[in-house]
Amino acid sequence: MPVTLDATSANFEAAFTTLLNAKREDSPDVDTVVAGIIADVRSRGDAAVIELTEKFDRLTLTPATLRITTAEIDAAVAAVSDADRSAIELAAERIRAYHVRQMPQDAEWTDPDGATLGWRWSAVSAAGLYVPGGLASYPSSVLMNAVPAKVAGVERLAMVVPSPDGVLNPLVLLAARIAGVDEIYRIGGAQAVAALAYGTETIAPVDKITGPGNAFVAAAKRRVFGKVGIDMIAGPSEILVIADGDNDPDWIALDLLSQAEHDESAQSILITTDPAFGRAVAQAVEKRLETLERRAIAGASWRDYGAIITVPDLAAAAALSNRIAPEHLELCVADPDALAQNVTHAGAIFLGQWTPEAIGDYVGGPNHVLPTARSARFSSGLSVLDFMKRTTLARMSPEALRAIGPAAERLAASEGLEAHKLSVTARLDKLNR
Amino acid sequence: MPVTLDATSANFEAAFTTLLNAKREDSPDVDTVVAGIIADVRSRGDAAVIELTEKFDRLTLTPATLRITTAEIDAAVAAVSDADRSAIELAAERIRAYHVRQMPQDAEWTDPDGATLGWRWSAVSAAGLYVPGGLASYPSSVLMNAVPAKVAGVERLAMVVPSPDGVLNPLVLLAARIAGVDEIYRIGGAQAVAALAYGTETIAPVDKITGPGNAFVAAAKRRVFGKVGIDMIAGPSEILVIADGDNDPDWIALDLLSQAEHDESAQSILITTDPAFGRAVAQAVEKRLETLERRAIAGASWRDYGAIITVPDLAAAAALSNRIAPEHLELCVADPDALAQNVTHAGAIFLGQWTPEAIGDYVGGPNHVLPTARSARFSSGLSVLDFMKRTTLARMSPEALRAIGPAAERLAASEGLEAHKLSVTARLDKLNR
Repeated sequence: MPVTLDATSANFEAAFTTLLNAKREDSPDVDTVVAGIIADVRSRGDAAVIELTEKFDRLTLTPATLRITTAEIDAAVAAVSDADRSAIELAAERIRAYHVRQMPQDAEWTDPDGATLGWRWSAVSAAGLYVPGGLASYPSSVLMNAVPAKVAGVERLAMVVPSPDGVLNPLVLLAARIAGVDEIYRIGGAQAVAALAYGTETIAPVDKITGPGNAFVAAAKRRVFGKVGIDMIAGPSEILVIADGDNDPDWIALDLLSQAEHDESAQSILITTDPAFGRAVAQAVEKRLETLERRAIAGASWRDYGAIITVPDLAAAAALSNRIAPEHLELCVADPDALAQNVTHAGAIFLGQWTPEAIGDYVGGPNHVLPTARSARFSSGLSVLDFMKRTTLARMSPEALRAIGPAAERLAASEGLEAHKLSVTARLDKLNR
Repeated sequence: MPVTLDATSANFEAAFTTLLNAKREDSPDVDTVVAGIIADVRSRGDAAVIELTEKFDRLTLTPATLRITTAEIDAAVAAVSDADRSAIELAAERIRAYHVRQMPQDAEWTDPDGATLGWRWSAVSAAGLYVPGGLASYPSSVLMNAVPAKVAGVERLAMVVPSPDGVLNPLVLLAARIAGVDEIYRIGGAQAVAALAYGTETIAPVDKITGPGNAFVAAAKRRVFGKVGIDMIAGPSEILVIADGDNDPDWIALDLLSQAEHDESAQSILITTDPAFGRAVAQAVEKRLETLERRAIAGASWRDYGAIITVPDLAAAAALSNRIAPEHLELCVADPDALAQNVTHAGAIFLGQWTPEAIGDYVGGPNHVLPTARSARFSSGLSVLDFMKRTTLARMSPEALRAIGPAAERLAASEGLEAHKLSVTARLDKLNR
């Protein structure tokens, strides 16, 4: 049974703080191993990648077989059922339609002093997408990373996906093709991240690497940050459901379990204004756990990190939610829009009882790569902006320089930077001030 | 003398690659020391911060004197000259006017399937600003970090600035006051970063930390990343000037030196279509170096990392510029706008001969915190967006769920996530499909 808290009880604050600070993931310290792998790939290139793939994935490759060929992709995707293909196409189309709206605007204006100012956005030239292998090799993650990259205008999108024992996932390859991925390499782990960041004889380096991975991948991304850009370091997934008593307990139970089934470290929390409803959800969770395919994982997550919190009103619910800063927030209340107005920190909000989080994981349109572990306090889900960068523009007319140059001279002098000052002075002298 | 390259010569590619890959900063390995400092501040709070400040800054503090008082700030800023005050006010106003235009738009729309989608931006609640002490304690950096934070709507902006031997910089305090900084603590180093990230008895934790610092500060920011957000890890500064022969060699020499005087690791590069002009600039640099206050630093930077590259035409200049991905790019050519169209990677572009980079450092309006070390390939200068985060919104009507729910069920099933599927199925069953 998960923890059950009453926000009006005397010991609530202590218990809630414990819940907030629960360390759900004990990352193994793989940093030394990862540093060695990166150094090896930097110095020996393909040869290192091939050796490490043999060791970790039990797969013998050559430089010529690192990349998955078009013929292999053709053969794999030909085996995909029409129903699966249609579902992936629908998801890709909806994700694309949402992300196209995120395209930022360039700007340029001339201010009253005669300075023309602005900025211009441009795409990252080359991006790398890490896709996990095995059980967590999800076509939906391919779409959520690759579609925004292509909408942004990334010219070259290279994907890496380990194929332990040589097994490929046809749905992952189909999603990559539909999303417009340009190159796919059958490698994974820290060696794949190093190959993308530094390049090898066969794999050209990229400018930015995104996508989820295990502790080795996360440590490698952290290490190559600076040489290339990275997205966030993903932690275990979380959901918070705020529900009043006017909901089907089984629906809410399934929503909580759809987070719990990801990972024993996932966290599912229900906040409700109705204690009886909270008890009904708890019972519904137990009932579903009797038969759920992934009941071992979901049960462990729910038992260890799940929580049901009762609050006197929705204002109290919003206040607790903002302290949790959840990755996913479902608002199953009569007026979800009104409640959403009081939410300041959340990765994604799902409004109303007809919007289970699973819709957002696949076909809603918004990205499912979202800030975990309370980082919604300061970061956002993946977007088109993650694959773009902004160049600022400034152009002074002689009049503008005359107007604002003296202030620059003064500040440069006060900071002891004489050449800065003189670069303005020399020009103002030409203008005879 | 700096390296002089001719883009049409046979050995150019090798020499240019060497220039590109020159490792200008050999960061000392301070990570172990920093890890210890962070752990100490986490466990002992104020007491650790006070001990470390005594050790590194030769300053004895108590919890009551960690924070610089309003009276102290009043006294310090009262001593600032009117001219300095006016210059800071003008800079703050121009930076504010530029950054206000960066405020992102919220969005909400309903698509043909009946799904209401959108996003909403909100400010980070609390941000911390690191300001270096000593010689590199720049009021302009305070403005460039604090103004965007306040424009974004950050409610609590806490600044840390070390004051070795107790010396405060009145201009830094005035810039902080004008920019709206809420709290200032006289601490620095890794201990200040740790205090901001984890909080102490006296200093409440923040959600995001920005601002430049030495190797200890950079290592600390890298370590607390995840617990809080951070801005980029700044490297040594760079300028690239592309100039035709129709410029004053002395102006361009001063622009190159205004970068070189920052740091012996700074890099200044001139690309010109006119070899005679290149030689004239080289002579002008040497002449200015005879008298420049910071000639030791600027001379070392220019000698070790400076370069003058001649190219056959401006198209070749743009191509090289994109490989350099410079932090600062000056286009001193007849039609700078046309040339800028061919620039794909640059932190900031300064258009035309009346726009020395120093204008952008102080009063232009755009931010002077820019991506260094070729990271303009994948990242942008500091902006209002760095102090905000985006929450995505989705609301399904029953009709929308009927339309797109089956695709979500299919994808969930294909990924082996049964609870995800059932959370949709249960609702579709209620709708009788």
